[in-house]
Amino acid sequence: MTDERRAWAYLTRVVEPPSDQLAALVADVGAAEAAERVRKGAVSAELARATEARREIDCAAEDLERIDRLGGRLIMPDSDEWPTIEFTSFAGVDRRRHAAGMAPLALWVIGDLAVNEVASRAAAVVGTRASTTYGEHVATDLVAGLCERDVAVVSGGAFGIDGAAHRAALAEDGRTVAVLAGGVDVPYPVDHSALLHRIRRSGLLVSEYPPGIRPARHRFLVRNRLVAALAGATVVVEAGLRSGAANTAAWARALGRVVCAVPGPVTSSASAGCHELIRAGAELVTRSEQLVEIVGRVGELADEPERPSSALDGLTDVGKRVYEALPARGVRSADELSIESGLPVAALQGQLALLELAGLAVQDEGRWRLVKSKS
Amino acid sequence: MTDERRAWAYLTRVVEPPSDQLAALVADVGAAEAAERVRKGAVSAELARATEARREIDCAAEDLERIDRLGGRLIMPDSDEWPTIEFTSFAGVDRRRHAAGMAPLALWVIGDLAVNEVASRAAAVVGTRASTTYGEHVATDLVAGLCERDVAVVSGGAFGIDGAAHRAALAEDGRTVAVLAGGVDVPYPVDHSALLHRIRRSGLLVSEYPPGIRPARHRFLVRNRLVAALAGATVVVEAGLRSGAANTAAWARALGRVVCAVPGPVTSSASAGCHELIRAGAELVTRSEQLVEIVGRVGELADEPERPSSALDGLTDVGKRVYEALPARGVRSADELSIESGLPVAALQGQLALLELAGLAVQDEGRWRLVKSKS
Repeated sequence: MTDERRAWAYLTRVVEPPSDQLAALVADVGAAEAAERVRKGAVSAELARATEARREIDCAAEDLERIDRLGGRLIMPDSDEWPTIEFTSFAGVDRRRHAAGMAPLALWVIGDLAVNEVASRAAAVVGTRASTTYGEHVATDLVAGLCERDVAVVSGGAFGIDGAAHRAALAEDGRTVAVLAGGVDVPYPVDHSALLHRIRRSGLLVSEYPPGIRPARHRFLVRNRLVAALAGATVVVEAGLRSGAANTAAWARALGRVVCAVPGPVTSSASAGCHELIRAGAELVTRSEQLVEIVGRVGELADEPERPSSALDGLTDVGKRVYEALPARGVRSADELSIESGLPVAALQGQLALLELAGLAVQDEGRWRLVKSKS
Repeated sequence: MTDERRAWAYLTRVVEPPSDQLAALVADVGAAEAAERVRKGAVSAELARATEARREIDCAAEDLERIDRLGGRLIMPDSDEWPTIEFTSFAGVDRRRHAAGMAPLALWVIGDLAVNEVASRAAAVVGTRASTTYGEHVATDLVAGLCERDVAVVSGGAFGIDGAAHRAALAEDGRTVAVLAGGVDVPYPVDHSALLHRIRRSGLLVSEYPPGIRPARHRFLVRNRLVAALAGATVVVEAGLRSGAANTAAWARALGRVVCAVPGPVTSSASAGCHELIRAGAELVTRSEQLVEIVGRVGELADEPERPSSALDGLTDVGKRVYEALPARGVRSADELSIESGLPVAALQGQLALLELAGLAVQDEGRWRLVKSKS
C-alpha cells in the first residue's frame, strides 16, 4: 500500500463530494501533500470548514483493506482505468477550477469491468421507482437491444426502472454498472441486496464514497451526476413530474450528454415527466437503435423502421409520376419536375411533400432529389 | 343569381384543384372573364389541357340550385365569410403565383357557422382510421378541452380519430368542421352519413368540390391541405408510419402552421407515426391547454400542470438553503450564492439544477433568479 493510495482514500472520506476546493488543492500539490495539509488544517478557510468534522478521522488503511477483502479497488485519476469524464462543459460554471471540481476525486469499485472501457460505450437507463408494467417492459426491451450492440447499461440500482434495466442487462449477459449513493459494500435498497450482489459478480458497482458510508438523501442527487457522467446518453424511461430521474437528466444536459426520454400514454402519470423532458428538448426515443446511434461509434446508424410495405405502394398514380420524374442522380427544381411530369408546379408540391414523408425524396436548397437510387 | 356566382361555380368544377394557372387567370381578369375564356379554350396551353375534359360541361346553375336546396352556399373570395388563409408561405414555392395557386378557388359549404370566424380559432384534430381505444379516448379528451375554450375542431370526417373528434365536439356543443374530399352532399364514408348529417345541422361541412363530386383517392390528399389551412395548428392523435394524418401534418408544416402530435405507448403501432413526427420536430402535446395556447389569442397561456404537492417539499435541506439564498428580486451569481448559502460553488450546481427542474429558479446569463417571487 503506497502513501499516495492512502492519501486518496483519506481524501474521499474527508469531504462530502463534490468539492471544487479540494479538487483544486489536489491539482496544485498532489494527493499526498493535499491530505497532509487537510489533516493539519493548513488549508483555505472554506476547505477547512468543509473538512473540519472529519479531518481527524483517518481510516484510509482500514477502507483499503476492506475494499481489498471485497475484491474491489480504489481507482485514482492516474489509474489506467480512470474514465475520461469531461466535466469542463458543466453549464453555468465558467471557471475551470469549478468545473474540474465536479469530477469525482477517486472511485471505489467492485467488479471485473474496467470503468474507462465501460464508460466509452454506455447508456444510462433510469426512471421512476414507481414504474408501471409498461415502463419495465420498455426498459427491458431497450436494454436487451443495447446489450446486443455491446452498449453498457448504467443505472442507480433503485427500485422500478433502474432495477428493470440492471436485471435485463444481467439476463442478456450484457455489461451493467450500478452507481451507488453510499459505499459499494452497503447494499441499498436492502431488498436489492441480491441484485446488487449479481451486478458485483458480473458487472460493476461504483461509488465516490468510501466503504461503509450510508446513502443519504442529498447523496442520491450527487450520485445522479455520476450516472449521467459515465454514459454517453441518458434515457429516462418513466418519470413522474417530480422524479429523481429528471435530476439525472438535468445533470446529463449540464454535462453536455444527450438526454433522451421514452414517451408513453398521456394518461399515465408515470410518463408525464418524460413528456415534459421531450417538450423541453430531450430526444424522443422508441427503439434501442436510436440510443446506439447516439452512444455508439461513428457510422453506427439506426436502421430505418420497417414500414408496412413498399413506400411506392402508397403513392397515387400522380405521386408515382412525380417520383418517376425525379432524376436517378442529382437534383431537379420544381419547374423542371413540372415539365418532366406534366403536372403544374402547385399540384406538384403536395406530391413532393408526400414523397418526402414516405422518405423517398428530400428537398435540398429548393431542389429535390431521391433519397435512395431507384432499384 | 349573378353571373359572377355562376362563373365561380363553373370554375370549381372545370379543373381538378389546386390549379395555380386558373388562380392566376382569375386574379388577372376576374372570375366571369376567366370562366368565359376557359369555356372557349382561349387560355394557356397548360390550362387548356387541364380544363379540356370538362370545359363544355356547364352545370353551374344546377350546382347552385342544389346547394340552395340543401340550405348551403358557395363562398367566394369576395364574400364576407371568406377565410384569410395565408398560402403565400407554402414551403418550396418561391413565386407568389404558385403560392396563391394553393388556395381554394371557392368553397361549397353547408352549416350555420361562418368559415372565417371558425378558422380564426380552430385546431385540426386528425389521425389514423385504425385508431385504438387509447387514441379515441385522448381525442375525445383533447376536443372536450378545446370546445370548453371555444376552439373549433376541424377534421376530415373519416373513421377512427377524425370521427371521435367530431363526435366529441358535438357532444360538448362545440363547433366542428368536416372538410370533405367530395361534394358536401356526398356523405363519405357512407357509414358516417348520420354523423355528417349532425355536423351539417350544428357545425359546418366544407368542400372545394361542387355538389355531386365523389371522393377519389388523390382528392383526400388535396383535401388534407384545407384541413390544415383552416386551423391554426394540426394535432395528430394517432398515426401509423404511413398515415394520411402525416400528410395533413406535412401540409400544416408547409403552410407555416404548428404541427403537434400526441405520444403514446412505444409498443403501439398506432402511435409510431406520432413519435416520428415529434422526432422530426412536431410539438409533443398531452393536454388541450397546450393547443389552446397555440391557436388561442395572445396571452392565453396553458396553466402549469398540477404538481403532486409544493415544489419546495421535494427539496433537501441543502436545496432549501440554496433556494433561500436566491434574492426575492434580481439575480445572483454562483459565487454570491455560495457565500449566502455557505455551500461550495461546485455543490451548489446540482442544487441549482434541481431548483431549475422544479421550476423554482432559472439561469440568466450565468446568474440565477427565482421564477416566482417568494410568498
